Amino acid sequence: MDKQLLLTSTRNVLMRLEETIIFGLIERAQFASNQVIYQKGAFGSELSGESLVGYLLHETEQIHARMRRYTSPDEHPFFTDLPAPILPALVFSESPIQPNAVNINAEIRSVYEQQLVPLICPPGDDGQYGSSSVSDVMLLQALSKRIHYGKFVAESKYRDREEVLKPLIQAMDREALAKAITDEAVEAQVLERVRLKAQTYGHQLGGGQNEFRVTPEVVQRIYAEWIIPLNKQVQLEYLFQRSV
Amino acid sequence: MDKQLLLTSTRNVLMRLEETIIFGLIERAQFASNQVIYQKGAFGSELSGESLVGYLLHETEQIHARMRRYTSPDEHPFFTDLPAPILPALVFSESPIQPNAVNINAEIRSVYEQQLVPLICPPGDDGQYGSSSVSDVMLLQALSKRIHYGKFVAESKYRDREEVLKPLIQAMDREALAKAITDEAVEAQVLERVRLKAQTYGHQLGGGQNEFRVTPEVVQRIYAEWIIPLNKQVQLEYLFQRSV
Repeated sequence: MDKQLLLTSTRNVLMRLEETIIFGLIERAQFASNQVIYQKGAFGSELSGESLVGYLLHETEQIHARMRRYTSPDEHPFFTDLPAPILPALVFSESPIQPNAVNINAEIRSVYEQQLVPLICPPGDDGQYGSSSVSDVMLLQALSKRIHYGKFVAESKYRDREEVLKPLIQAMDREALAKAITDEAVEAQVLERVRLKAQTYGHQLGGGQNEFRVTPEVVQRIYAEWIIPLNKQVQLEYLFQRSV
Repeated sequence: MDKQLLLTSTRNVLMRLEETIIFGLIERAQFASNQVIYQKGAFGSELSGESLVGYLLHETEQIHARMRRYTSPDEHPFFTDLPAPILPALVFSESPIQPNAVNINAEIRSVYEQQLVPLICPPGDDGQYGSSSVSDVMLLQALSKRIHYGKFVAESKYRDREEVLKPLIQAMDREALAKAITDEAVEAQVLERVRLKAQTYGHQLGGGQNEFRVTPEVVQRIYAEWIIPLNKQVQLEYLFQRSV
């Protein structure tokens, strides 16, 4: 895949995922935070010591693994003990990124459960454990995809400015590399775009709902405080693993 | 549950599901129609003769059944061979509807696969089988919930106008009963509201996408031609099974 094509296709995926994430946040915010679904063991021994959300996520990943989801370079599982695909292997066009072992899903899950859910959901317990968990799994998968897309972003930046980035990678200079891959103008653009999208999609029609918690400001904050920094973390880890 | 509370809570659920369905349609429309995922046996013998979507739906329902999804009176599985719940039974407040065996999911699935998907998705095959199937399962579940909510609607109407509906049910007069439960003003309101919502949510920001297929008119048509009539069919079947 050539440089320009990689950049364009990466941008398109990132923009498309904004809708998925914002819709997902609005869906999840319909239910109370339901903290019990994140507590390991809260639902008895049948969930193998997992929380309800962990159980559903694990079971879902087992199905998706059989459907070969995780053979795609832009998908990252939260669990490692997954079955082999039962579908014949897809012929992927050559992956534009290099083989690597970067996977920060443990951190994504912890940030999501401990910070994002309390931020977007009404506090308390409404008993909607199943619906909340289904929504959580969808959001966790979308956030993971968005954040790990940092690999494609980093690859694109590397090909564009190898002469600047290569020495920083070789010197293992994390701080300088972080600075070199940061484009504040692009970040400001993303933040403004998600604010606008949230304003559009979050528009409550038909009334009769809870007060609206997924405000444009909250979506912007989720991007600014978690999604963008975690994405940058993936970019750095990918670049340090990349052969230069 | 008293009559007024039943009416209000039913209305709120139906309105909330409009968002879920419209978001789901927009998500699914990002991918090509990918007809091969609906063809039984297209992916070899490992899927027990099911199509890819059927396989994912079946596997998903097995997990959700273990999480006791289908013990709730507003949830209806597409498959019948599902495992028992592993979670302790929820103490539901007394169900406002009567026990019944109405389940038109086979029809919903066939309408969805054969008519809705070709309507909303770009024709052809983009290889996005996993993402398309995941989106299909989500939409099928939301459509099933919306359509089977006709049971709550019908119960509410019965309690409100028992003196009118009871004789029609006893006379097994399907045509007159269909007419008696139809409120054209309410239907027009629903159609106008979903058109407005689709206009709001479907607003394409950020550009760079395919032409927009989930137009307000398409959403309105999906409600007018499929969701509302199928919902009415559920209402009728429920009333004929109701003890009067």
